[in-house]
Amino acid sequence: MTAEDVPPRRGRGRRPADEVRADILSTTGQLLLEEGIADLTFDRIARLAGVSKTTLYKWWPSRGALALDGYFHAVEDTLAFPDTGDIRADLVSQLHAFVALMTETAGGSALLQLIGEAQTDAELAASYRALYSTERRRLAVERLTRAQEASQIRPDVDVRVLVDQLWGSVYHRLLIPDEPVTPEFATALVDNIMDGVAGA
Amino acid sequence: MTAEDVPPRRGRGRRPADEVRADILSTTGQLLLEEGIADLTFDRIARLAGVSKTTLYKWWPSRGALALDGYFHAVEDTLAFPDTGDIRADLVSQLHAFVALMTETAGGSALLQLIGEAQTDAELAASYRALYSTERRRLAVERLTRAQEASQIRPDVDVRVLVDQLWGSVYHRLLIPDEPVTPEFATALVDNIMDGVAGA
Repeated sequence: MTAEDVPPRRGRGRRPADEVRADILSTTGQLLLEEGIADLTFDRIARLAGVSKTTLYKWWPSRGALALDGYFHAVEDTLAFPDTGDIRADLVSQLHAFVALMTETAGGSALLQLIGEAQTDAELAASYRALYSTERRRLAVERLTRAQEASQIRPDVDVRVLVDQLWGSVYHRLLIPDEPVTPEFATALVDNIMDGVAGA
Repeated sequence: MTAEDVPPRRGRGRRPADEVRADILSTTGQLLLEEGIADLTFDRIARLAGVSKTTLYKWWPSRGALALDGYFHAVEDTLAFPDTGDIRADLVSQLHAFVALMTETAGGSALLQLIGEAQTDAELAASYRALYSTERRRLAVERLTRAQEASQIRPDVDVRVLVDQLWGSVYHRLLIPDEPVTPEFATALVDNIMDGVAGA
């Protein structure tokens, strides 16, 4: 079922704000993953979610902000950090899911486009951090910290730096595509960072 | 001396094309490092370098392409890969120079802006790779390969991945600035990748 098939809600009286908000986010996230951002307008989302554009503007300052909020919720399960107790295996499986999402869905390209626009749009850059990246970083750091507490990562390591050397490296290849982003690349990122590359 | 102070060349007859081209690139690179990209127009570069706009369009398809070509040449010495025989020390000093360039010059922000625009401009994306990133990657891989030949990096490591885990990690923090880019961050990138972070 695509977003277009969802019948507009026509209940009597007002729906609770939380429910309306969740509806809008879900409609937006679904559109983003299926189609990308080109045709994602406030007009269309308002129509599909059965709300007014005023409601959208009340909650999100721009379509970029709404897109990021919708995307965050749409990919939250796909990008969850597993905890099987084996940090190496958990990082590999999470990064493989991340690579698949970024290379195989329209949402991946949409995210790269928003990162691009954020370079010259300070308000969008603030929305990007507030509605997407800061929380994604926090979730990664949380899983890495548990691994550190379990002695699977050395205690002197700043795990915030690992976020850039794992997910950040994938973003780098996506944004400046001199080399391909593959599952093998994701596995190599984890191997290099866990084992180190120094020779004998 | 700023680019504005350079007197236009008024020799008799035509200057050799190589010399004209080098002049244009040097004028562009100097402007980028000092002022960034906002006021970098073909009109202004043509005037400063004493050439026609037709000449500029003959050699570069867009001001973005000219900016990238000028930037590459302007930073070539600053970003040279030292070879003292100690890959760890050489990576740290090169990355510190890279971080300083990206955080302390107007050229750094200009580069981020061009990466941003390249996300929705396929021609600029092609210019970015052709005139900047592919060659920067090649130079990094060349130095890393010498370290691998000297047994300072394990033979089974794909050194192309290290480019993303060192310089790519810096780009990631610059493009999505949730955390600061500092010399300490650059040093940690090298320590993590050389030693690995796995616990006992």
